[in-house]
Amino acid sequence: MIVCLAQMDSVIGDFTGNAARIVSMTKAALDQDGASAKSDLIVFPELSLCGYPPMDLLDQEAFVEGSLKALRLLQKELPPGLAVAVGYVDKNRDASGRALVNAMSVISGGKIVFTQEKTLLPTYDVFDEARYFEPAKTRKAYVHPKGRIGFAICEDFWWESPPNPSFKYPVDPVKELLDLNLDLLVVPSASPFVKGKLETRLRLARSRAREGGIPVLYCNAVGSNDSLVFDGRSFVVNPKGKPLAFCDWDESFLVFDSETMKAEGCAETIPYSPADEKPAARESGVTRAVVDKNPPMEELHRALVVGIQGYMGKSGFTKACLGLSGGIDSAIVAVLAAEALGPENVQCIAMPSRFSSEGSIDDSVELCRRLGMRLERLPIETPFKAYLDLLATPFAGRPFDLAEENLQARIRGALLMAWSNKFNALLLTTGNKSELAAGYCTLYGDMCGALAPIGDLYKTEVYDLARHLNALAKAEGRPEPIPLPIIEKAPSAELRQDQKDQDSLPPYEVLDGMLRLYIEDNASLDAIAAAGFDRELTSKVLAMVARAEHKRRQAAPVIKLSRRAFGIGRRLPLTRQIHETRV
Amino acid sequence: MIVCLAQMDSVIGDFTGNAARIVSMTKAALDQDGASAKSDLIVFPELSLCGYPPMDLLDQEAFVEGSLKALRLLQKELPPGLAVAVGYVDKNRDASGRALVNAMSVISGGKIVFTQEKTLLPTYDVFDEARYFEPAKTRKAYVHPKGRIGFAICEDFWWESPPNPSFKYPVDPVKELLDLNLDLLVVPSASPFVKGKLETRLRLARSRAREGGIPVLYCNAVGSNDSLVFDGRSFVVNPKGKPLAFCDWDESFLVFDSETMKAEGCAETIPYSPADEKPAARESGVTRAVVDKNPPMEELHRALVVGIQGYMGKSGFTKACLGLSGGIDSAIVAVLAAEALGPENVQCIAMPSRFSSEGSIDDSVELCRRLGMRLERLPIETPFKAYLDLLATPFAGRPFDLAEENLQARIRGALLMAWSNKFNALLLTTGNKSELAAGYCTLYGDMCGALAPIGDLYKTEVYDLARHLNALAKAEGRPEPIPLPIIEKAPSAELRQDQKDQDSLPPYEVLDGMLRLYIEDNASLDAIAAAGFDRELTSKVLAMVARAEHKRRQAAPVIKLSRRAFGIGRRLPLTRQIHETRV
Repeated sequence: MIVCLAQMDSVIGDFTGNAARIVSMTKAALDQDGASAKSDLIVFPELSLCGYPPMDLLDQEAFVEGSLKALRLLQKELPPGLAVAVGYVDKNRDASGRALVNAMSVISGGKIVFTQEKTLLPTYDVFDEARYFEPAKTRKAYVHPKGRIGFAICEDFWWESPPNPSFKYPVDPVKELLDLNLDLLVVPSASPFVKGKLETRLRLARSRAREGGIPVLYCNAVGSNDSLVFDGRSFVVNPKGKPLAFCDWDESFLVFDSETMKAEGCAETIPYSPADEKPAARESGVTRAVVDKNPPMEELHRALVVGIQGYMGKSGFTKACLGLSGGIDSAIVAVLAAEALGPENVQCIAMPSRFSSEGSIDDSVELCRRLGMRLERLPIETPFKAYLDLLATPFAGRPFDLAEENLQARIRGALLMAWSNKFNALLLTTGNKSELAAGYCTLYGDMCGALAPIGDLYKTEVYDLARHLNALAKAEGRPEPIPLPIIEKAPSAELRQDQKDQDSLPPYEVLDGMLRLYIEDNASLDAIAAAGFDRELTSKVLAMVARAEHKRRQAAPVIKLSRRAFGIGRRLPLTRQIHETRV
Repeated sequence: MIVCLAQMDSVIGDFTGNAARIVSMTKAALDQDGASAKSDLIVFPELSLCGYPPMDLLDQEAFVEGSLKALRLLQKELPPGLAVAVGYVDKNRDASGRALVNAMSVISGGKIVFTQEKTLLPTYDVFDEARYFEPAKTRKAYVHPKGRIGFAICEDFWWESPPNPSFKYPVDPVKELLDLNLDLLVVPSASPFVKGKLETRLRLARSRAREGGIPVLYCNAVGSNDSLVFDGRSFVVNPKGKPLAFCDWDESFLVFDSETMKAEGCAETIPYSPADEKPAARESGVTRAVVDKNPPMEELHRALVVGIQGYMGKSGFTKACLGLSGGIDSAIVAVLAAEALGPENVQCIAMPSRFSSEGSIDDSVELCRRLGMRLERLPIETPFKAYLDLLATPFAGRPFDLAEENLQARIRGALLMAWSNKFNALLLTTGNKSELAAGYCTLYGDMCGALAPIGDLYKTEVYDLARHLNALAKAEGRPEPIPLPIIEKAPSAELRQDQKDQDSLPPYEVLDGMLRLYIEDNASLDAIAAAGFDRELTSKVLAMVARAEHKRRQAAPVIKLSRRAFGIGRRLPLTRQIHETRV
């Protein structure tokens, strides 16, 4: 049989739009030249009809009704003569348990001919599915005239790789499905991007394909919703576990013929080279050569561009603005925004103070020149002076301290928001993960913004990405976007005379090493010290992280790139004893 | 047997401090005159050893180790000769399932003589327990030499009142316990305050006491953690379902003798008068007379004071500051802060603009005079002018609009934060639930602050509370704290000439009615229209609410008072289609 995976970008709550897209993609697949025109089954991602994650919209009965109404619409409008699998939210019709189920139905000839509910409900990190859904009680095979198919919905496929090593799901849905004498295993997913996650997906698919001796077809969502980027990259592995074809990150098809065991995707390269195999043959070319040398950075680059485009597009903005400080963080956000939105849609604003170096402005001017972005210059001295005068009496006799430092950052925040309000441009905030972790940022100041593109990149990763973007440009014959002085200067917030980040923070190589162990691995002080970090310094850093929790609670959403990003996937109390530094 | 309920204020992560408090409260109970000196069993609340809710601290192995270490400490330090029940986090020692359990153990003679794990894991609203815990597989009776006791941990007791009508827990732990021939049912809880929730707790206790023909002892936590206030009010009902005694909202004991069926609490009144019974006899007195006439408002008042005190105390602040606009919201926050912290610790700041009425300042002066708070006056004209001059060129030819309105609010936010930073005073933000819902507030402006005390009170409730606080003061012979003009003037943000809230919003009686149905009940447009609200206006309001989601994502934590407060208990996507106005 011929199966077509249709990786799709759904909008949460846009039932009519998503249904129309499912219909138009189905027709497009059938209208194309080649194998897809003969598709027996088209598969769309998990919850493609309502978008993922719907979060507490699921508490609204009208949301569930909207999803079901769209399902009925699909039954009418999908072309007959083939089967189409779509994900949607349904009511739980059992007597007990949660109100809803995360379901996937096959529509054929205007009827629902098969339904599988999701069994394993991710309830960790950014996922809250046990909040809404009742797990499936049974796993069944969909019997198509041309073959028996098992559907493992996203997490159902992850039994072998639970969220943490001390947690084991009591049921293995794929094992149960493989016992049903399947011809194919299909995995409709809405699996958010995390760096390196594609390799895990592939490892799982290879393992299960070999276990069952059948092909595994993985169909992921694309686009982004809030913090989450869906990286698509749907793929097929053959019964020996060999990847046959991939999709890229955009809305597109992958077509697999189970007779010939041939698959056609749209990605130029197979972004996968497991240690136990030779890398698959690749198309060469200058760009690809660079990318291949640096796949982790290129993966992050791609995710960031998709994340910015998705957030802007889905919140109805075409224009963005941001503050350029002359430092590496704002420079890289500007480069990413220019790529995502077009430089003509990115307004940069430099807001020098009495403490800004001349170099900072020159570097910002040069950056904008290279990228073709407009730069506005708004020196903050006059409002700063007005505030200082106003506060002179109550603050009399007290030294210049954090209050005045933060005030400068807040003036910049207010100017950027005024710009955002006046010109309907979405403000991008430029803080990185190291700063957000240590609290080396000003709430309502440089933290202002609707989206924090690099809020899940450690400072050392920001440097790596900057070098990668310059190398990529050079390899493609474009001018390097980021002026060298921006990469090479010592990082500084420039909020007082001769300030350097390293006056308040350990060197970023050290800081990021500690933070990664603490945030990503939940490592204790003992464990971090055992990894070779200074115990006393680690204790200080962990205390800084804990004390900055209230800032992060009010931070802009970040684009999730790591296993543990700040935001909805990391939930900590504010008023607590900092036990980490003492146990 | 004699059972003493010890309602305690735990600090999250303060294992040593919580253990010491458990030991000192146990000793205090035994040292008191009266029945508690003969206690056979002392009961502490759910997770009293680690504090509730620990949230993602539970992902840190060191947190769980800290909890277990403190448990071993308790085994050494608790006096012998009686049994003590404490709640803590333990590892799940089964082969599969989540890593942890929410456990309660009885310590006696230095040993753990009984353990019950929690069965029903709340995973709705502010609760995320399925994220961390594996449910108990069995329910057992604790066999004390003097009686058989069943422990239903918090949600285990709520089978009859699930989070929503379409959800039914598959297991009823209390039913299973009652089948074990118990003498007593004990309910150790960490049950956050919600208005009217005490009545539900009592209803459940009465029902279960009658069902089992045994007394039910309900032991709740006190104090607050972040958004959550724990209202204590532990109680005992007899086998006929009659409430015998209550605790108040503070750390204290309730002692029950199962021989005599007599109980001694510390609350002066029994805040309960079910429709089917006569109110219990009460001590009279002027204050109580007022309170009794107005229990819902007094309950909110109490929760707000406890919430402010808890947040301030546990984050290490003694001083607070806030902006006084002359309106009702900031006035009531000032009154609550003065009561919670002492007026000498509350700094009010009036920041008039070119659009402020003279009355606004006079009213603020009068409010501070009545309460004995300091008032600083910082007119914002000079920084406002500096910003306008700076932006004159890029904004040339564009009308005064939201950008300039918001700018004024952001100048005030920056001044308040400068004050907060300079004097180490925690900034209280003064927005109410109606504003936060409709987005009638400025991000990084009046939304600045570490805590939003009245962020879960609708505007109409703010007025009710203001009248209640004045009535309470009058009844107690104190001057009314809130000047009448503040209550009577038409609400205005005063961000442009002659602005009134009702230019942008429906009358608050209408707005709040719609919002309550939409936010608390997840009602659809159809349902709200069917309740008598104008359909078109409702559609507009629902769109406003959805469009303000990005503001609330960056809002300060509110003190939760209602079934559905903004914050961690209400989780919505930002970039989505607003389906509510169309379905």
